[in-house]
Formats: sequence, structure tokens, C-alpha cells
Amino acid sequence: MKKIWIISLFPDFFASYFDSGVVGKFFAEGKLTLETLYLGDFSKKSFKGVDASPYGGGPGMVMRADVLKSAMDHIIEDGGYQSKDELHTIYTSPRGETLRNILAKDLGMISKDLVFICGRYEGVDERFIEEYVDQIISIGDFVLSGGELAVMTIIDSFIRFLPGALGNNSSALEDSFEDGLIEGPVYTRPSEFLGKNVPDVLLSGDHAKIKDYNHQKKLEFTKKYRPDLYKAYIDSDNR
Amino acid sequence: MKKIWIISLFPDFFASYFDSGVVGKFFAEGKLTLETLYLGDFSKKSFKGVDASPYGGGPGMVMRADVLKSAMDHIIEDGGYQSKDELHTIYTSPRGETLRNILAKDLGMISKDLVFICGRYEGVDERFIEEYVDQIISIGDFVLSGGELAVMTIIDSFIRFLPGALGNNSSALEDSFEDGLIEGPVYTRPSEFLGKNVPDVLLSGDHAKIKDYNHQKKLEFTKKYRPDLYKAYIDSDNR
Repeated sequence: MKKIWIISLFPDFFASYFDSGVVGKFFAEGKLTLETLYLGDFSKKSFKGVDASPYGGGPGMVMRADVLKSAMDHIIEDGGYQSKDELHTIYTSPRGETLRNILAKDLGMISKDLVFICGRYEGVDERFIEEYVDQIISIGDFVLSGGELAVMTIIDSFIRFLPGALGNNSSALEDSFEDGLIEGPVYTRPSEFLGKNVPDVLLSGDHAKIKDYNHQKKLEFTKKYRPDLYKAYIDSDNR
Repeated sequence: MKKIWIISLFPDFFASYFDSGVVGKFFAEGKLTLETLYLGDFSKKSFKGVDASPYGGGPGMVMRADVLKSAMDHIIEDGGYQSKDELHTIYTSPRGETLRNILAKDLGMISKDLVFICGRYEGVDERFIEEYVDQIISIGDFVLSGGELAVMTIIDSFIRFLPGALGNNSSALEDSFEDGLIEGPVYTRPSEFLGKNVPDVLLSGDHAKIKDYNHQKKLEFTKKYRPDLYKAYIDSDNR
């Protein structure tokens, strides 16, 4: 992908996040561009026209398919795409595939440009989803006030897998989940904190011993905190 | 809780999020206050002193326990707390309890004020976690460039359960997960979109029929998209 488009009612959320940190650095270097569209610009009545009451009754509001289509039409024209088929459009919803490290990696490998639709209120008219959405992703079994945080989370999770995204690429490889285990404890200066010392072995300079210690701690933490992952690890050929 | 404190290296992320939408409205009404502290203010060398290389080697940087302690000391003094025991301190990490709707509800019921520690880089010195952190939460099995998005996600997920948070409180009750099922499709104007009509039953005005239809669709969507939740629902007494 070369470009990520985001359709949102709160486009300002994204600027401060994607301007900072390693993710911001990646965008600043121009390896990937991000363009956020305000959905209200595609309604005849500004933000007032973006949603309406659900057919059949019930609480809340539903985002209109026609207004979302206008935003998609703008992206297709402005981005010089032949049709929506040249884009990969993602919507976030609890019904989607659960975001996991492996899905994040897959997303990082998509060659098409991405479009993210940020839902608000009770969701998006189903007909828009049927016509335009290629993939639905859930970040977890909880409900958010809007899709914006989910979209930022998805983008942050896959940007690390694009080449050159991390200052230190070896970092991604040693992160949680890369070997099916979660990270063990880490320590830095000062060597004493509230009477607690850093484990001696880490100060020993004995690289083989340190490596072994860190691996044992990863196993110990995974077994203690994530018995599900530990079982999968033990049953696999990884170890 | 009356107040949420956030310790972060990127405090600006939070302002734009918590200023808008239903979550922003809740804070604006003063039902809950949010204070974000910049961790660099508690280091002797500004942001340069907040982290250091991990003992034992390895890539990346580790956030220093002593600098985090200074930030906690400031919160205790500034907030007029007797000790850290009057606060509930949360750190985000893949090793934590997975955020789910039921955990979000539990968080909304905590009477102590909350402190969120946003990790960056390779994480936080384990001794700080041992001494200060009461709960570790994971938003999912993926790695983010920092804890900020996870913290915003956690806050957004529980604010909806605080009384008065949603414009329409019945909304939360009909959302996904409340009855163990995910939401079905929703539709709004226009009644025709790209040749697709809204299902007739939703226009019928027959409330009993609409209710039955919507419930059948929830079952259908849950079975199709989330067979794990469907099985749990069928095995439970909910239905």
C-alpha cells in the first residue's frame, strides 16, 4: 500500500496520533501517506445529514449508505483509482475477524491502498457494508463509542511490520507473540529501586546465561499470565 | 472514581480524543476529570532521561522505574491522596487480562481514582510494575507502538457504563455482547440504495414482527461471524 484513507466524523483524532512517535516518523518520511476525510463534507446537510434513525425503530442513529458512498466516490476520483476494486476497504465491528499479530502482518502485506470506515452511533447501513467493505475487523469483545480508536489500533499494529517502520527492526522480532510467547520482565537503571535489585545474571556479562535466563522468564510469564498461549506453544514445534 | 490520571510520553494524544464525541461530552460535564501528565517532566533530563538500555542487553529502551515513581509521587501529592493505595493503577501489556465487555463494566465500578501508565519502547522496569501496578490489562494479542491507544480504548470501553455517559442509555443495553450476541444489520434512509431495498418487515410497523426479525438476525450474525459466542449462547440459559 501507498496510501491509507480514513472516513470519519472525527478526523482530528488522527492528526495528533499519527504526528508522533515511531508511527508518526514513518508517515513523516513519506513511505506511506494518510488522508482523513470528514464524512460531514459528503452530506447535503453537513454533519446533520450523515445519519438517520434506524428503520424498524430502536435507539440511536445509523450512518447513511448514500453519504458514505459519496465519500468513497470522492476517494476513487481524487486518488485516481479505476474503481472501488482497486481499494481494500475495512470496517470495524465486533462481528469482524479478531485483530491478532498474525492478522496485523497480513494487513501490512496488502498491496492495494486501504480505506477505513469509522462507524459511530449504532453502526453503518448494512447495504453499504455489502457493497463496499472488503474486510471487517474487530479489535476485541468490547464496545467503543466509535471506530476511530479501533482504526488507529489496527494501523499501529501493522505499521510495525512494514519495512523501515521501527527504529530498530530487530525490536519487532523480539516482541511478544513473535515466537508464540509473551515478553518477560525488563530492567534498566538504576540498578537498585526501592530496595529491589536487578537480577544478578543480567549484570553478569555472560551472554549465554542471560539469553537462557530471558527465555526461561518468557516461558514463566507466558505460563503464569497466558496459559492459553503456553499450551499452544508446548503443543507446537516452536520450542 | 472521580478522576483519571494518565502518565504518558505523548500526552497530546489524549486531548483531541477526549474533547469530542460522547466521551468528550462526559468529561465536559465534569462527571469525571482527566489529567494527563508528561513523563518527561519527572526526569532530570526531560524526555532524554525517561528510559535507558535494558540490563542484560537487547534492542530498544526500557522506561525507568524511578522516573515513573516521581510521576506517581506527584499524583499522590497533587491529588491529596494518603498513599498509592488510594489509587488503582493500571498498566497495559500483552500479559494482562484481556479487555472484554465484562471487564469494562467492572472497571466502571471502581471507586478509587485511576492511574494509567502508558508504556513505550520495550516496556517498563519490572520493579515499578511490582511496586505500583494493581492491574495489567491487554486489549488483544497484538503489539502497539505504545500504551496510549490501549489506554484510550480501555477508558472508552468503560465510560459507557458510568451512569449518564451515553446520550441514550438504552443504547448500551442493546449493544453487542449485552446478551451474549453481536448486533445484527441496521438500515436507515434512503429506503433504496444501489438497487437494494430495506427488508420489508422493518417498514411494516408491526413491532412484534420487527422484534422477532431483529432477534433472528442477531442469532444469524452471531452464528455466522462469531461461532464461539454462538456456542456459548446456546449452552447458556440466556436464550
